[in-house]
Amino acid sequence: MRQNWWKWGDPNEIKHLSDYPKLRDMVEERWKTKLREDFFPPKKISIPPIPEKKKDLIKDIFASIHPKKISFSADDRLSVALGKSYLDVIRIFNGNAFAVPDVVLKPTSHEEIQTILTKASESNVHLIPFGGGTNVVGALTISETNSKPTAICTIDLRNYKRSISIDEEHLTATFEAGILGPELEKILNNKGYTLGHFPQSFEYSTLGGWIVTRSAGQESTYYGKIEDIVERIKVATPSGTLESNPFSHDASGINILSLFVGSEGTLGVVTEITVKIKKLPKNYRWVIALFPTFRNGNNYLKALAQSGVKPSVVRLSDANETNLFSKMSSSEEQEPNLFNNLKKEAQKFILQWKNLTEPCVCILRFPQGDFSVSSQLILAKDLVSKHDGMVAPNTIGDKWADSRFKLPYLRDTLVEHSIYIDTMETLVHWKDTMKLHQALNRELSKSVAFNKQKGIFLAHISHIYPNAACMYFTLITPMQKGREIEQWQEIKNIATNTIINNNGSVSHHHSVGADHQRWYKLFSDNLALEVLVSIKNKLDPKGIMNPGKLFS
Amino acid sequence: MRQNWWKWGDPNEIKHLSDYPKLRDMVEERWKTKLREDFFPPKKISIPPIPEKKKDLIKDIFASIHPKKISFSADDRLSVALGKSYLDVIRIFNGNAFAVPDVVLKPTSHEEIQTILTKASESNVHLIPFGGGTNVVGALTISETNSKPTAICTIDLRNYKRSISIDEEHLTATFEAGILGPELEKILNNKGYTLGHFPQSFEYSTLGGWIVTRSAGQESTYYGKIEDIVERIKVATPSGTLESNPFSHDASGINILSLFVGSEGTLGVVTEITVKIKKLPKNYRWVIALFPTFRNGNNYLKALAQSGVKPSVVRLSDANETNLFSKMSSSEEQEPNLFNNLKKEAQKFILQWKNLTEPCVCILRFPQGDFSVSSQLILAKDLVSKHDGMVAPNTIGDKWADSRFKLPYLRDTLVEHSIYIDTMETLVHWKDTMKLHQALNRELSKSVAFNKQKGIFLAHISHIYPNAACMYFTLITPMQKGREIEQWQEIKNIATNTIINNNGSVSHHHSVGADHQRWYKLFSDNLALEVLVSIKNKLDPKGIMNPGKLFS
Repeated sequence: MRQNWWKWGDPNEIKHLSDYPKLRDMVEERWKTKLREDFFPPKKISIPPIPEKKKDLIKDIFASIHPKKISFSADDRLSVALGKSYLDVIRIFNGNAFAVPDVVLKPTSHEEIQTILTKASESNVHLIPFGGGTNVVGALTISETNSKPTAICTIDLRNYKRSISIDEEHLTATFEAGILGPELEKILNNKGYTLGHFPQSFEYSTLGGWIVTRSAGQESTYYGKIEDIVERIKVATPSGTLESNPFSHDASGINILSLFVGSEGTLGVVTEITVKIKKLPKNYRWVIALFPTFRNGNNYLKALAQSGVKPSVVRLSDANETNLFSKMSSSEEQEPNLFNNLKKEAQKFILQWKNLTEPCVCILRFPQGDFSVSSQLILAKDLVSKHDGMVAPNTIGDKWADSRFKLPYLRDTLVEHSIYIDTMETLVHWKDTMKLHQALNRELSKSVAFNKQKGIFLAHISHIYPNAACMYFTLITPMQKGREIEQWQEIKNIATNTIINNNGSVSHHHSVGADHQRWYKLFSDNLALEVLVSIKNKLDPKGIMNPGKLFS
Repeated sequence: MRQNWWKWGDPNEIKHLSDYPKLRDMVEERWKTKLREDFFPPKKISIPPIPEKKKDLIKDIFASIHPKKISFSADDRLSVALGKSYLDVIRIFNGNAFAVPDVVLKPTSHEEIQTILTKASESNVHLIPFGGGTNVVGALTISETNSKPTAICTIDLRNYKRSISIDEEHLTATFEAGILGPELEKILNNKGYTLGHFPQSFEYSTLGGWIVTRSAGQESTYYGKIEDIVERIKVATPSGTLESNPFSHDASGINILSLFVGSEGTLGVVTEITVKIKKLPKNYRWVIALFPTFRNGNNYLKALAQSGVKPSVVRLSDANETNLFSKMSSSEEQEPNLFNNLKKEAQKFILQWKNLTEPCVCILRFPQGDFSVSSQLILAKDLVSKHDGMVAPNTIGDKWADSRFKLPYLRDTLVEHSIYIDTMETLVHWKDTMKLHQALNRELSKSVAFNKQKGIFLAHISHIYPNAACMYFTLITPMQKGREIEQWQEIKNIATNTIINNNGSVSHHHSVGADHQRWYKLFSDNLALEVLVSIKNKLDPKGIMNPGKLFS
């Protein structure tokens, strides 16, 4: 296993804090401390080997699976034990105890997956489906349960990733669940199509993972969330294989498709997935705007969503995030950087509006295909001035696009410097967005775990609907060494309670996982949960699928 | 009960065949027969009164419901016994035996509905929820079942129809399920909004009915089907009340909302419904086109759907329908009629393309709101010429709009003249649309029940998706007196088998009902049906809700 296996992404893409000198200076000044330069390696995690007798038992249960697809290696087992949340990373860093599966199965066909589920159910083997492993809310964490399984097994779907068909007559495509974002997009792009689904985890997450977590891409305002994109699925369950209706939009009774969207591996493994595909845009058009306050920008986006204008990318940063991002550029002597232009504009903007020193940047991108979206752009720009904003140069947009999947790298870098950094997101009605923003600011600045006013709280709006917006929060503060997990939990509690108290959803696109389950159970309809349990009992009567998650 | 209670709609709107002299001439010429002028009244249907002892038992079970909301009257019971299908009408005409409920309950609140379900479940009373009663596939028919219920009760929701709230900040609105289309639209229109849901039954169907049948309005290509429009629901079930997630698009686990869309009353009664509303369009823009063949028009609509252009109204008539509609105009001396302009254009069109004598008309309407849809219109018109069509005057569109809800009246008129007339619809992949059209033509013209080549077969495409289209068929032929039901069933079998053999769905927007159940069961995934049964067992353990329908 490579040294930095726990890190995000491609080792060549890793950024160091020295790449962001202004960010570093700001943080050191704010926290009156020098940040460590040297990386501290994660503590050695000891993975107890599986006793030979247990191995033989497991091999026997899965006798019909090729031995090469069954791995007991510590490296394999460790690599699928966790997701990519801050909690996951600090557990690894500090060598904290966490459960690791006994075995990793690597099926390559629906039939193999079905066999695994059937055999596991017969023998009380717990199964955790694993896609790209990028979940940030503990969906992959092995939960403690009362039952005593024969073994705990992760189904690693990363080798189950063929393109089954591209149907150009109907603009649909069928893939196996384990295909990664870039693999899928490459296949589609080569024929002139796109799925339009680009979560920040895009490069390392899978189609199947997107479905079972109810994922949203950064362009979901135009392309829809994954529940809008999926047309049909095939699912392996302990009780057998099922397929949803051939059409997502007919009237042939109840379509069970949506039962599996957001099911987080509790009902089975979604295997073959037919998605709607779109023609690749011919070009993109940007609207970049600066607003004097977050509230102005917020009201702008509400008006935009309610006018029917459909940008794909939407990102309105609050003043803190706008300011911090401008600090993430390299020194100004170097190559043209992300926010030089923005800063120049911001200065002009500040001059124009005396006393307004904290502009908020808003980035919109419109895909343009067979017909012009100019009339939408005209309205989008019109509305900017109606909401006291000003239109800024487009160049910022292209630079955002270059760095759109890079932020997870910075997270690892900050953790290495003993900095706590976590992100949270929620779907919240427009009436509550600004209240929630203020409440989070207020509650966090009272928290010792967050270092009170010294903690850095960033927010942006990233997906818009006529009735609601997805708000995304980034929290940064010095790590409380020795009590990292307690610190994380304290801040998580404050943030999630504040979100829930302001009528936000438990999640807009990260799912429930282990981390949100408490709130999910508390705020879900009781009878609805009972219905889900009855479905679980039908499809997974022995309770072997991702036990302890969601309603179980 | 008024004399023509079984008829569609408003007695003042009823049309007679003498209003359509050219249609009449065409039919008489084709069938070599004179159509009867005199209306024959429906045979007297005898509704056995409920014995006093049974009444007392029922009153006792529903003791907490106000006696005024409990009706045993023959008129009330008859009025909710059937829907508005051809089969329903001929049963009434001929006095055929059909089951009638013992009692009609008329609740006016969620709590009353919940009480009815709870009490009925305790006492084994079968319940059939009734919205507007416009279903055309037997969804309201009382099915024969093995169980012996204490009583059969229809819950008439027509008095349960308040507007609960219009949330102008979030463009959502909450209504009680029994509200009729025009009532709902009037409330929204008064504030500048629309739901955008206009099925042909609009004037007499209810919001709750639209949801449980997975309805589509005539403008669904733009506004979406009802499953796209509904945001949240409250449901009364025999096991209690449940509510779906506060948001339709979050990631807080599985959202059970979609379990009730298309549930046809089998799981409970959907009571309070929050829908997404839209600003009223500022104006409409039309594209009317004529194509030399149905296939040209079909390919045009496919290209349009795949380009991202979003008309609301889409209607491409085949040559037969285009021709017949031109005959439905009044005599030419009278006021300007629906198809005069079209005919003039068609003549020009035919002159231009020698040997093409059967033009197909295509009507598109675009709602225009805060921004111009001109670029979509330009593309839509461009594509017309690319598919060998020609753009025709817009006036036809306005005239279509005037008569959009009037066709059901003509159905009753034809039945009174002993003419069989039925409609069918399906969602079908683009690869299969023309094959299905030809196959239906072929199979029907072999059928004695359809009068072979003398039967009139009309088709149009009415809703378009990138992968599929809804095809809508109208079948007209002389009634086989004395064997009307057998004739209906024979034609239904031919048509539905042909639809299914060409991969069409059982229904795109009429639902399964009693009439499609055989095909629904045959072509649904077995395990999916078992899952639905397990949900049914949880929510309706005694099986009292619309027994015998769908999977039960």
